[in-house]
Amino acid sequence: MAMVDATEVDHLAAERAAAQFDVEEMKVAWAGSRHAVEIADRMARLVASDPVFRKDTRTMLSRKDLFKDTLRKAAHAWKRIVELRLTEEEANLLRLYVDQPGYVDLHWGMFVPAIKGQGTEEQQQKWLPLAYKFQIIGCYAQTELGHGSNVQGLETTAMFDPKTDEFVIHSPTLTSSKWWPGGLGKASTHAVVYARLITEGKDYGIHGFIVQLRSLEDHSPLPGVTLGDIGGKFGSGAYNSMDNGVLRFDHVRIPRDQMLMRLSQVTREGKYVHSNVPKQLLYGTMVFVRQSIVADASKALSRAVCIAVRYSAIRKQFGAQVGGPETQVLNYKTQQSRLFPLLASAYAFRFVGDWLKWLYTDVTQKLEAKDFSTLQEVHACTAGLKAVTTSATSDAIEECRKLCGGHGYLNSSGLPELFTVYVPACTYEGDNVVLLLQVAKILMKTVSQLTSGKPPVGTMAYMGNAQHLMQCRCAVSTGFFERSPDVVEAAVAHIQLLLLLMCTYGVRFIEKLQQDIPGHGVKEQLQNLCNVYALYLLHKHLGDFLVTGCITPKQGALASEQLGKLYAQVRPNAVALVDAFNYTDHYLGSALGRYDGNVYPALYEEAWKDPLNETVVPEGYHEYLRPLLKQQLKLSRL
Amino acid sequence: MAMVDATEVDHLAAERAAAQFDVEEMKVAWAGSRHAVEIADRMARLVASDPVFRKDTRTMLSRKDLFKDTLRKAAHAWKRIVELRLTEEEANLLRLYVDQPGYVDLHWGMFVPAIKGQGTEEQQQKWLPLAYKFQIIGCYAQTELGHGSNVQGLETTAMFDPKTDEFVIHSPTLTSSKWWPGGLGKASTHAVVYARLITEGKDYGIHGFIVQLRSLEDHSPLPGVTLGDIGGKFGSGAYNSMDNGVLRFDHVRIPRDQMLMRLSQVTREGKYVHSNVPKQLLYGTMVFVRQSIVADASKALSRAVCIAVRYSAIRKQFGAQVGGPETQVLNYKTQQSRLFPLLASAYAFRFVGDWLKWLYTDVTQKLEAKDFSTLQEVHACTAGLKAVTTSATSDAIEECRKLCGGHGYLNSSGLPELFTVYVPACTYEGDNVVLLLQVAKILMKTVSQLTSGKPPVGTMAYMGNAQHLMQCRCAVSTGFFERSPDVVEAAVAHIQLLLLLMCTYGVRFIEKLQQDIPGHGVKEQLQNLCNVYALYLLHKHLGDFLVTGCITPKQGALASEQLGKLYAQVRPNAVALVDAFNYTDHYLGSALGRYDGNVYPALYEEAWKDPLNETVVPEGYHEYLRPLLKQQLKLSRL
Ligand SMILES: Cc1cc2nc3c(=O)[nH]c(=O)nc-3n(C[C@H](O)[C@H](O)[C@H](O)COP(=O)(O)OP(=O)(O)OC[C@H]3O[C@@H](n4cnc5c(N)ncnc54)[C@H](O)[C@@H]3O)c2cc1C
Ligand SMILES: Cc1cc2nc3c(=O)[nH]c(=O)nc-3n(C[C@H](O)[C@H](O)[C@H](O)COP(=O)(O)OP(=O)(O)OC[C@H]3O[C@@H](n4cnc5c(N)ncnc54)[C@H](O)[C@@H]3O)c2cc1C
Ligand SMILES: [Ca+2]
Repeated sequence: MAMVDATEVDHLAAERAAAQFDVEEMKVAWAGSRHAVEIADRMARLVASDPVFRKDTRTMLSRKDLFKDTLRKAAHAWKRIVELRLTEEEANLLRLYVDQPGYVDLHWGMFVPAIKGQGTEEQQQKWLPLAYKFQIIGCYAQTELGHGSNVQGLETTAMFDPKTDEFVIHSPTLTSSKWWPGGLGKASTHAVVYARLITEGKDYGIHGFIVQLRSLEDHSPLPGVTLGDIGGKFGSGAYNSMDNGVLRFDHVRIPRDQMLMRLSQVTREGKYVHSNVPKQLLYGTMVFVRQSIVADASKALSRAVCIAVRYSAIRKQFGAQVGGPETQVLNYKTQQSRLFPLLASAYAFRFVGDWLKWLYTDVTQKLEAKDFSTLQEVHACTAGLKAVTTSATSDAIEECRKLCGGHGYLNSSGLPELFTVYVPACTYEGDNVVLLLQVAKILMKTVSQLTSGKPPVGTMAYMGNAQHLMQCRCAVSTGFFERSPDVVEAAVAHIQLLLLLMCTYGVRFIEKLQQDIPGHGVKEQLQNLCNVYALYLLHKHLGDFLVTGCITPKQGALASEQLGKLYAQVRPNAVALVDAFNYTDHYLGSALGRYDGNVYPALYEEAWKDPLNETVVPEGYHEYLRPLLKQQLKLSRL
Repeated sequence: MAMVDATEVDHLAAERAAAQFDVEEMKVAWAGSRHAVEIADRMARLVASDPVFRKDTRTMLSRKDLFKDTLRKAAHAWKRIVELRLTEEEANLLRLYVDQPGYVDLHWGMFVPAIKGQGTEEQQQKWLPLAYKFQIIGCYAQTELGHGSNVQGLETTAMFDPKTDEFVIHSPTLTSSKWWPGGLGKASTHAVVYARLITEGKDYGIHGFIVQLRSLEDHSPLPGVTLGDIGGKFGSGAYNSMDNGVLRFDHVRIPRDQMLMRLSQVTREGKYVHSNVPKQLLYGTMVFVRQSIVADASKALSRAVCIAVRYSAIRKQFGAQVGGPETQVLNYKTQQSRLFPLLASAYAFRFVGDWLKWLYTDVTQKLEAKDFSTLQEVHACTAGLKAVTTSATSDAIEECRKLCGGHGYLNSSGLPELFTVYVPACTYEGDNVVLLLQVAKILMKTVSQLTSGKPPVGTMAYMGNAQHLMQCRCAVSTGFFERSPDVVEAAVAHIQLLLLLMCTYGVRFIEKLQQDIPGHGVKEQLQNLCNVYALYLLHKHLGDFLVTGCITPKQGALASEQLGKLYAQVRPNAVALVDAFNYTDHYLGSALGRYDGNVYPALYEEAWKDPLNETVVPEGYHEYLRPLLKQQLKLSRL
């Protein structure tokens, strides 16, 4: 837990005492409200104190045991949620702190929203109650062995058979096997399956269908359905708790009314007809999913930064004199210049997440009023933020691991698992480069329309002021395809500008809050982090600023110097700034990131848990080591 | 194997046919000579055809089984080496292709060289024959729980006891536990242990000692010795085959003559005396170790690039028209701009490795002649190249993984293991940032001496010509410590200049070779890759070039444009350029990187090997899924 026992020493006490702001108030700023702090705290403690939710030996479990452990945790979590009558908000937090990917994530995160978004009223009334009570478990089966990014290229077919009023779902090729869906391999009873709808001999492209996969009696795959897990993934523990699956259909029949029919239907006769619901309504779900991905980025990043900051304050290496007292590595300017921008990024992403939540509400209202004018801009904005924050977070977690030196390479540091479980966020829900290309296309289109009198809106409004963009022709004239690497860089720059704006917005937001909340020094710290973030981006992309003449070389040099000064202001507050995330030791899962800083005994104890330490003389000694040492290898059969 | 069965289809045949150069001759250029191609080929096939060396289920093994598998492979490899009377060169290649970290690496790579470098003639005669025949297994025990980078801060003590003519080796604190040495946890019988030598009440700092750890009869730890494994590490499979260990001494006594005494000795009476051997001689070993790390970087990087290039030529996604033929993702300019610089880097690092080999010979000769004039420059050069190539390679492997989309996240792609087994190279043999700070210090010193009439030598000679450096004061005057992030950037720039020079050198080297070796198009391809590498660095560090006024914004833009044209020239040759690495499918260990490009059936088959697929209905169904689905959770105890 995040509290130090009275009998124990807080090795970070001096750091905490040096902080120049009120940590409790910063917790409120980070969580969003006092209420949010309170329930996060309560849920985190609930999980941390329950032995079923232990995860300290997770990376040592075999795949089978890990999966079984996931099933157990999911069932137990659900039991607690029901027993304690938790609200949806509380239940979500409980699942967050259980911190183990599993079928539940896809059930709530993709299956239910797909039915809500794409199902008719009737379909929702039939299927949602079953899903809400877990009478069925659902997953989201879109990707195939041969097609991921290009959804329109999916090969699975759903052929309407007017004789029986059924769709026949079929996998015509090996590459049409569904491949990747989480929860599909072992747990799900149902899936929303995306397939090419074919009726009256015509291919109408990709549509969603609710398909039962397994018997509700004994969980065996239904006739014509082949199911399996697609095998081990990056890291130990990590995403291996999830049964990403493979699925093949051999002419599996489902009733016609299991096609998700909110936007279009197939009639009893086999006619394909559009409903009067505009397809733009589906964007709402996408914005929702992407805003939660950005929120997750700030969570993953802040966990890694919390571990690296605390350990850097404990770790001492070298000193002014040999033999004299050693320096905390957090005092080294190189360590600061690698770590503090990541701390600033964690806060920046946190506030952007808030803004995206607002954007989701805004877009939902607009969609309901059939106002689609901002859709394109919102799409650019959410796709771009997803790409930029997930890439930055993945790189940052790995950098935090390196900042912990050798010990960061141990599973007991928690960082290897944090990295490997997080990094697929760069790939799922849209490969980041593919997303940035979409952003770039919208940017180019916006630029090319500048002279047409159609002013850019929302987050792109600034382009309207940039007169010199009017003369910009290069990318448009030499062809988008040829210049795509450059336009992707432009897309990243656009998104970073957005991040900066939002980050500033975050600080202003706090400023407003301060009218009611007394938070000594909170605003100053956030302002400082915001400046760090801005100058760090400037430093990192200096070339772009210089090449476009936005700043002079001299200004660039001044900015770098100023950055160093800002780091010095962050330094005394660094530990308190990560304390404000309010993470329990259970959630962090790191010997290096412990709240009390008692790192070395923790590392030492963790080591002995390894199964290899069950015996002093290792298995295999008699077969493979002794004959070698005794020069008797030639005689032995290996 | 790298050959396609006559009955099977080569899915990459069209790519191979399009190549504009002679692949067989490129193999010679890559390997270094015809002889090198021949023995690499022979050893690779030897390993690939031997069932003991299979590694296709490695990531699924438990820690214990994986370690046992390592012991088995090591013993079998040694058996084959002895049976076939392999030369040292052949044996090294065999071990390379076995491709599984284990105690053998430290035995040959650190234990033996330490004795060679730091032991007296007499000590070498006693210990080396034992090590050569594996009658003892040795490791290198330097790092402690509390000290890694700062070797002078190690806490283990070696107190001389003149009464018994022994050293007493002791671990006075928890943080003095030896922690990390490979091979220590379970396999080694001996270690070179670094400890503070104390005699006549005085601390003489860190020295090396040969210490027996385990009984040669039953492998149990000797009295006073506590041994164990430090636990699981990043990734599955990967470096977990190694028993990185913890070691504590409780007043363990060793004979005086087990101190490594080439440079200094303790006499029978306990007097500490220096020998007349200059300590600079130890640099030779360090240069040797670092040159092999750079060589390893080009190997790891080329493997990752080989997988990503072949898969990108097979993978198709999207097309000019929906429903029409799809585009190989290798044709996308963004894919090229991410991948081809890495291909170029693999070749660049390969040639730098060669140059470092030459440098090692050169330095050895100079040291023997007691000429220490180039030592500092050589140190900057090897430390810097170690840091820059290992960081670049780690990032590049992870980028190659992302370039493979979702499938790169599967263990069957080979890329997760390649990354996790490689990445500690950024930390061991000197944390990269700590090394770059050393380089930076030497650079600053060189600059400050420019006016003193002491001209810089070797790879730093160019500084002598840079008149404006004479006026450079900033870093020197504002203090090294404060500006260390900037000077680290300068160090990276210096090393990259070196890499470029060496890369050019590599091309010239081939040019010379071509007088005897007819290699159609080989030189042109290397020249092109060299240009890609140069312009890629320019693009990446554009800010530095612009801020210093080295190039104008317009030149920068031209360079970026030119880079795009160079990629177009690489494209038709990409697959052949990775074929030239001549890696077997066994060594690559990747369903995505197969020589024949038959990716999808391979991925599909690998999936079914996962233990989770042993049963269709997963273990845990009856306890945790059925009660959930049947709404009977409340009754069950989880
Ligand atoms: C952990 C994990 C969980 C997942 N869960 C699910 C799930 O629950 N349900 C589900 O249906 N799917 C799931 N997926 C699949 C995921 O959605 C896809 O992996 C993702 O859409 C990327 O597609 P791909 O793998 O086909 O990559 P590809 O599209 O094959 O990408 C390969 C490379 O090609 C490049 N590329 C592709 N198209 C273009 C282009 N037009 N221009 C330039 N470059 C291009 C990419 O940038 C990338 O470098 C999951 C994946 C992972 C890794
Ligand atoms: C896989 C693996 C195998 C290993 N094998 C062996 C082995 O066989 N034998 C052995 O003896 N050891 C071994 N080691 C240990 C290895 O040598 C150390 O991890 C390495 O020297 C780095 O030291 P550290 O871990 O103490 O990092 P630290 O020095 O604690 O580094 C932590 C952070 O502090 C920063 N830092 C430290 N000093 C400074 C400074 N002066 N200025 C600025 N920043 C600084 C670093 O950059 C880093 O970000 C192994 C390690 C690994 C990961
Ligand atoms: Ca740039």
